[in-house]
Amino acid sequence: SSSSSLPRDQRAPAARLRVRQALGAREAAGEVQVQGWVRSVRSQKEVLFLHINDGSSLESLQVVADPSMESRDLTFGSAVEVRGKLVKSPHKMQTVELKAESIRVVGPCDTLSFPLKAKERHPLEYVRQFPHLRCRSNALGALLRIRSEATAAIHSFFQDRGYVHIHTPIITSNDCEGAGELFQIETSNETQKSAEKNHFFNVPAFLTVSGQLHLEVMAGAFTHVFTFGPTFRAENSQSRRHLAEFYMVEAELSFTESLQDIMQVMEDLFKTATSTVFSRCPRDVELFHKYVAPAQKGRLEQMLKNKFVTISYNEAVEILKQASQTFAFKPEWGCDLQTEHEKYLVQHCGEVPVFVINYPYDLKPFYMRDNEDGPQRTVAAVDLLVPGIGELCGGSLREERLPFLQSRLQRLGLADTYQWYLDLRKFGSVPHGGFGMGFERYLQYILGVDNIKDVIPFPRFPHSCLL
Amino acid sequence: SSSSSLPRDQRAPAARLRVRQALGAREAAGEVQVQGWVRSVRSQKEVLFLHINDGSSLESLQVVADPSMESRDLTFGSAVEVRGKLVKSPHKMQTVELKAESIRVVGPCDTLSFPLKAKERHPLEYVRQFPHLRCRSNALGALLRIRSEATAAIHSFFQDRGYVHIHTPIITSNDCEGAGELFQIETSNETQKSAEKNHFFNVPAFLTVSGQLHLEVMAGAFTHVFTFGPTFRAENSQSRRHLAEFYMVEAELSFTESLQDIMQVMEDLFKTATSTVFSRCPRDVELFHKYVAPAQKGRLEQMLKNKFVTISYNEAVEILKQASQTFAFKPEWGCDLQTEHEKYLVQHCGEVPVFVINYPYDLKPFYMRDNEDGPQRTVAAVDLLVPGIGELCGGSLREERLPFLQSRLQRLGLADTYQWYLDLRKFGSVPHGGFGMGFERYLQYILGVDNIKDVIPFPRFPHSCLL
Repeated sequence: SSSSSLPRDQRAPAARLRVRQALGAREAAGEVQVQGWVRSVRSQKEVLFLHINDGSSLESLQVVADPSMESRDLTFGSAVEVRGKLVKSPHKMQTVELKAESIRVVGPCDTLSFPLKAKERHPLEYVRQFPHLRCRSNALGALLRIRSEATAAIHSFFQDRGYVHIHTPIITSNDCEGAGELFQIETSNETQKSAEKNHFFNVPAFLTVSGQLHLEVMAGAFTHVFTFGPTFRAENSQSRRHLAEFYMVEAELSFTESLQDIMQVMEDLFKTATSTVFSRCPRDVELFHKYVAPAQKGRLEQMLKNKFVTISYNEAVEILKQASQTFAFKPEWGCDLQTEHEKYLVQHCGEVPVFVINYPYDLKPFYMRDNEDGPQRTVAAVDLLVPGIGELCGGSLREERLPFLQSRLQRLGLADTYQWYLDLRKFGSVPHGGFGMGFERYLQYILGVDNIKDVIPFPRFPHSCLL
Repeated sequence: SSSSSLPRDQRAPAARLRVRQALGAREAAGEVQVQGWVRSVRSQKEVLFLHINDGSSLESLQVVADPSMESRDLTFGSAVEVRGKLVKSPHKMQTVELKAESIRVVGPCDTLSFPLKAKERHPLEYVRQFPHLRCRSNALGALLRIRSEATAAIHSFFQDRGYVHIHTPIITSNDCEGAGELFQIETSNETQKSAEKNHFFNVPAFLTVSGQLHLEVMAGAFTHVFTFGPTFRAENSQSRRHLAEFYMVEAELSFTESLQDIMQVMEDLFKTATSTVFSRCPRDVELFHKYVAPAQKGRLEQMLKNKFVTISYNEAVEILKQASQTFAFKPEWGCDLQTEHEKYLVQHCGEVPVFVINYPYDLKPFYMRDNEDGPQRTVAAVDLLVPGIGELCGGSLREERLPFLQSRLQRLGLADTYQWYLDLRKFGSVPHGGFGMGFERYLQYILGVDNIKDVIPFPRFPHSCLL
């Protein structure tokens, strides 16, 4: 299905350009070649207009062709190769367009059964049904470019500051943090047998819920380390903020002086990554801020300028107790903050990111550092709450003092299991701390995307593991 | 245990420097502060010498102090904070040294039970026994910095060329590629029950063995995509080249013209990443090329200059048949190349990287593109073999032609399972292909590390899942 005037191999070699390059180019003499998928076909008496997209940018390249080049296969969704010259466009929307000398349909599209339709803005919930095709929609295309840029921005943030990147393990024999919410792994054959014998690893093995303890190992040799990888929760919750498989950015710093050292990195990471993403893919971000969450842009720009607010857990409880609102869960010192509480606190502080620090000792895991403001009263923990999402990051100073850690683990009956972790405090222990940021929640927040399933390429959640 | 003359908060704020920064600095007037772990203590009558390492570089900073600053806790492995002035060093090995004004031991080290000893070059096998402490040895420290730089170099390689980074899923319901070698996942409770009912995801779910099929989804919207993440094999093989959890770099390109397009990217990736790593951490790389694999450096530099060799599978079989060597597995057209064969081929070509292309159709998975050089004779597949390792990369053109793919899947009884994959060929299919590179094998090769367990922070293999 070629409409070229010459056989392919007799033509002069054309410069292969991506759409993004073509759109940024000036009028040029030589022949160029652009490949991609047709986003629109508009046939007029005198001229045939196409829009070609290759995923390099949200914008498509306009192709102007002779109507004789039209063919049955040249439809929305088909893959094409267009040769021609870049010429100045008479239209305001673009500086150049491609005047076609030949159009070859590389792969036709069965438009009748193709779930995406030309010129329609499909809702995110609609395209979610087609995990193998939704990346071809404008919204998911933009999302995936943003996700890629955000990933790069986060890596750069840490590398520029001398952090060593560590691949913390996915499979781990640590199972203590949240027993009920773990995925266990077995070889395919093992699951048929009874559970206890013949483990591939000799011991029960699980999918990681956090790389923190492994990063702490590394924080005994490198003062600044980070990891950015998948983490897992087997929680049976169908929520717009939870996935069974999600990505987490985690950092650990040695020689900290206070919790503020950690909070400063959290805030810097958030602001630097966000500014980078906004400046590197403005059109993609605009799509979300225009059609998905219209008020988000101004709020975020304001937020990037101001220092995040900090309140203590004590203050948070006081604010909640004094609220005129009635909560389903009565706010009480010693109890976890519920979603409704987090929402109120963020609102109370002016719909800005809020650090809540110094949580009750008994609410938090064994590794958090005792503030010694009373007998096991509070620990140096911090959560970062953001509007519309709730908890975006969590962090803490870690208990670096051997006697404190040892007695807490002994009380919990975990001293044997965590002998290796105690070892870290025996051999050159240092004050240290770190945090984790949920990457999908981060994307949800900066783009204003309501459902977490729309910010990850292949969402995994209870009852669903498509592809 | 402070040996400072003034209480800590009364002193002027000192510039906090990492060891790498201090080593790169010139003599300076102001007070600086360096934090890290003691790598050596040498006490003389008139002067106390320390070496401080903080993981920012292989080299330690020499500290010169008054013998009065010595203390019982100031030992090998202890964590210290040193304040003082950077002065020109009289020694050849370094340009500056730190003249200490105060030394504070932040965390002592129980040297008797600490498995690392001062001034000893511990073998890699020895430190492997201590997964929580081995990062404090020179070799593992260097390895982890190199791994971090290599990770960054690989990300940059793709980003600089406009590839979109995709997080392909870790948990997948695809189970067809290598049935016996998969890890299956269940919630902790499920494994107690009988296997078939109440799956968390409703269907059996597995740990990914490759992100390829998911990348192919994305290659229908973006012409260049890549992923870099963990992959898993439940193979019960105790080898120096296999892990149950390892990292893979995978790329997929649309609008390919031939297998050479893919091979070019493989070769460029390898050479660009390696040059970047060598230039960004020369001292760390030198440690391996000096003490671990003395002949490796020259071989690699030669390799970076020359084009990789390409032979066809047909040629490979001929070469093997004509070999004077006798093989345990007789070379025969239609049979897989064994380790001994790969080794011979690499040797035959002069101990350089060798692409072997166009493998028998029946040896390869369903998605590889039929070369049509006979009835289902060969497919456009490529393996990259390298000295000392064997297979480093594997790739192929994918079968983009719906009828070819459909009939092959039907013969295999997989047409229903892969309906979504067939869909990709119905809606704007394009010639495409891609490859995967084993990241640990890559590190093994460029550093000359014999055992794959020594190039990953926390190795997972049969019978072992420590920490």
